[in-house]
Amino acid sequence: MAKDRYQQGLEKIKELTLSDDENPTGFMDIGEAYKDIAPDLSKYVVEFAFGDIYSRPGLDNKQKVLTTITALVAQGKPQIEMHIKTGLTVGLKPEEIVGCIMHLIPYTGFPSVLNALAAAKKVFEERGIKMADD
Amino acid sequence: MAKDRYQQGLEKIKELTLSDDENPTGFMDIGEAYKDIAPDLSKYVVEFAFGDIYSRPGLDNKQKVLTTITALVAQGKPQIEMHIKTGLTVGLKPEEIVGCIMHLIPYTGFPSVLNALAAAKKVFEERGIKMADD
Amino acid sequence: MAKDRYQQGLEKIKELTLSDDENPTGFMDIGEAYKDIAPDLSKYVVEFAFGDIYSRPGLDNKQKVLTTITALVAQGKPQIEMHIKTGLTVGLKPEEIVGCIMHLIPYTGFPSVLNALAAAKKVFEERGIKMADD
Amino acid sequence: MAKDRYQQGLEKIKELTLSDDENPTGFMDIGEAYKDIAPDLSKYVVEFAFGDIYSRPGLDNKQKVLTTITALVAQGKPQIEMHIKTGLTVGLKPEEIVGCIMHLIPYTGFPSVLNALAAAKKVFEERGIKMADD
Amino acid sequence: MAKDRYQQGLEKIKELTLSDDENPTGFMDIGEAYKDIAPDLSKYVVEFAFGDIYSRPGLDNKQKVLTTITALVAQGKPQIEMHIKTGLTVGLKPEEIVGCIMHLIPYTGFPSVLNALAAAKKVFEERGIKMADD
Amino acid sequence: MAKDRYQQGLEKIKELTLSDDENPTGFMDIGEAYKDIAPDLSKYVVEFAFGDIYSRPGLDNKQKVLTTITALVAQGKPQIEMHIKTGLTVGLKPEEIVGCIMHLIPYTGFPSVLNALAAAKKVFEERGIKMADD
Repeated sequence: MAKDRYQQGLEKIKELTLSDDENPTGFMDIGEAYKDIAPDLSKYVVEFAFGDIYSRPGLDNKQKVLTTITALVAQGKPQIEMHIKTGLTVGLKPEEIVGCIMHLIPYTGFPSVLNALAAAKKVFEERGIKMADD
Repeated sequence: MAKDRYQQGLEKIKELTLSDDENPTGFMDIGEAYKDIAPDLSKYVVEFAFGDIYSRPGLDNKQKVLTTITALVAQGKPQIEMHIKTGLTVGLKPEEIVGCIMHLIPYTGFPSVLNALAAAKKVFEERGIKMADD
Repeated sequence: MAKDRYQQGLEKIKELTLSDDENPTGFMDIGEAYKDIAPDLSKYVVEFAFGDIYSRPGLDNKQKVLTTITALVAQGKPQIEMHIKTGLTVGLKPEEIVGCIMHLIPYTGFPSVLNALAAAKKVFEERGIKMADD
Repeated sequence: MAKDRYQQGLEKIKELTLSDDENPTGFMDIGEAYKDIAPDLSKYVVEFAFGDIYSRPGLDNKQKVLTTITALVAQGKPQIEMHIKTGLTVGLKPEEIVGCIMHLIPYTGFPSVLNALAAAKKVFEERGIKMADD
Repeated sequence: MAKDRYQQGLEKIKELTLSDDENPTGFMDIGEAYKDIAPDLSKYVVEFAFGDIYSRPGLDNKQKVLTTITALVAQGKPQIEMHIKTGLTVGLKPEEIVGCIMHLIPYTGFPSVLNALAAAKKVFEERGIKMADD
Repeated sequence: MAKDRYQQGLEKIKELTLSDDENPTGFMDIGEAYKDIAPDLSKYVVEFAFGDIYSRPGLDNKQKVLTTITALVAQGKPQIEMHIKTGLTVGLKPEEIVGCIMHLIPYTGFPSVLNALAAAKKVFEERGIKMADD
């Protein structure tokens, strides 16, 4: 049932944001800002993106977020900041997030990587995260 | 020394292609087809892409290839086929490779995913690979 | 229920391909070629792309296919050929399909447009379609 | 004559911006900000983009703007805001503009769509537009 | 007058293809294959792309073709092969064409560069061109 | 040796930024802002991008920067502003920089060109540069 997919999507979002029933979507942007112009958007985000796709077997959560971050670096999308946060939530080490971005130099070139590192630096500073080799 | 970076790159390529000293680059395209017009290209591929970047700490080989595959799906590049092979070499399960491609639907849309699955299917068939849930 | 979304998606695909219950997906590629490696893909294509998104109100079928064709031209995806066919099915005139592609010159440049016109020409020739002003 | 193409382009821009002879280009950015460094740019915008391409037969104005909006969503260009305004001028309903953006989820992914809806929301709010189903 | 722009465009194409009045467009693809479906396309190619833009002052022909080749590498468009030929016609040395493609590694990554070098190699082989340092 | 490549890269950056031993990287962003999270980044920028690639024979510095600017326009990257500055340093005339951007209209469309001209205008104004035909 659609209700199950929505519930499944919310559970997945809670895993990715470490949020709870009070505020189940946490820092995740599910498109609620647009509910007056596209009232069905947040349903698709929750049910399809998180209830269907993020809930597939095959990859674990860390792998899913690494894949997400990579796609957002390659496309230059601002959503990378939010998914650096989901990465930290699911247990990716800062070294892994930076490692993923740096690994893209031979595939996307330096400018995309520099722009993505700016997002990582901002999130790490907000959260007081220091790299292991500091 | 540059020689060390080249040697380091070759060692990494051997890991990714399961090749040996007889044929150290195996199925990896390091640009040797272009050595008459760009004689320095294969050096940059080996030394920089594999000796520097693929040899960074931070990610393990499986994570590096997942990141690579994701970038190539997002960009629609034909090199995805070669890196599905490197993924299998470093121990990614077919479910992980397919899981990575499928995870991209909400980020790149369906056409990019369909085109990438065609490459996966081709490699899996060539190698007689069947998915675990067949 | 999921079954309703699947059924809704199939109905929409039948509209877009003028197919029937014997062969409900007609010339539409719903990813069945990949069912051995990604058995859930065709479900997402039918339920989400066609059952949810193509079934939204707001645009009529002609507008939806024009939008689809435009996205595929901008991205240079080979799926444009299939959607020139869906355009003809829902009643887009050849002049509208070509008009849409030509309209993109100031936004995507000439090469993308030339490549897309090659797909249009191929489909029109296969179907014996001539433009109104021939 | 070139003069005719320029005049034709201005007429088309007036249709798209509901402006008049006093201020014929209205809210349309024809590149006049760059006339000191690229004095011929606005001529190309008016003569080619609007005098030639926007004045082609094949599509009506609503279809032309839908095509334009789609291309700008797919490319992530900031000009989408201006063309949401031209869409409203030529009679596209807010539902059609949002419908076009939402239709792109299966082709460009969610992030591009979220970013485009932010532009639509901004324009609708500036103009006091409410969706029919509010 | 439009006629002058067309004539100007043809002159520029002759410079770029070393063709003559018998066959003024030489190996240049001006979209004539699509004249039955988009009869105005070749006019826009000749008048706008070559009569207006390629005829601007500011850059010499070698610089214009280097710029063109770079754009086509960055976009992965097949038209790169044709513009490697126009580069040779206007006097770009093979080293400059290859130098331009190789220079893009830090900006577009290796796969785009490898794909572009395949086009250069093909053209050079067809024309019996050898690099200076062979 | 790696030290030589780093030194070679610094020399190239000094050419491109007209800086000196006191401040060898001048206005060039070599990623030092990210040294706490990616301490090896600036080494790759200096050694690979500038020590290897920018130091290749084949193109002169003006051609290298034209190629760089073109790639950044085609990709819509903010680094274009920095490379308009490197272009001025190596002797590109403002007419050549603008000529390169304008030349891209038939390849990338108008929006990319308008966005890039905004960066050029900003740099020219900061430096009090006027075009020759003012």
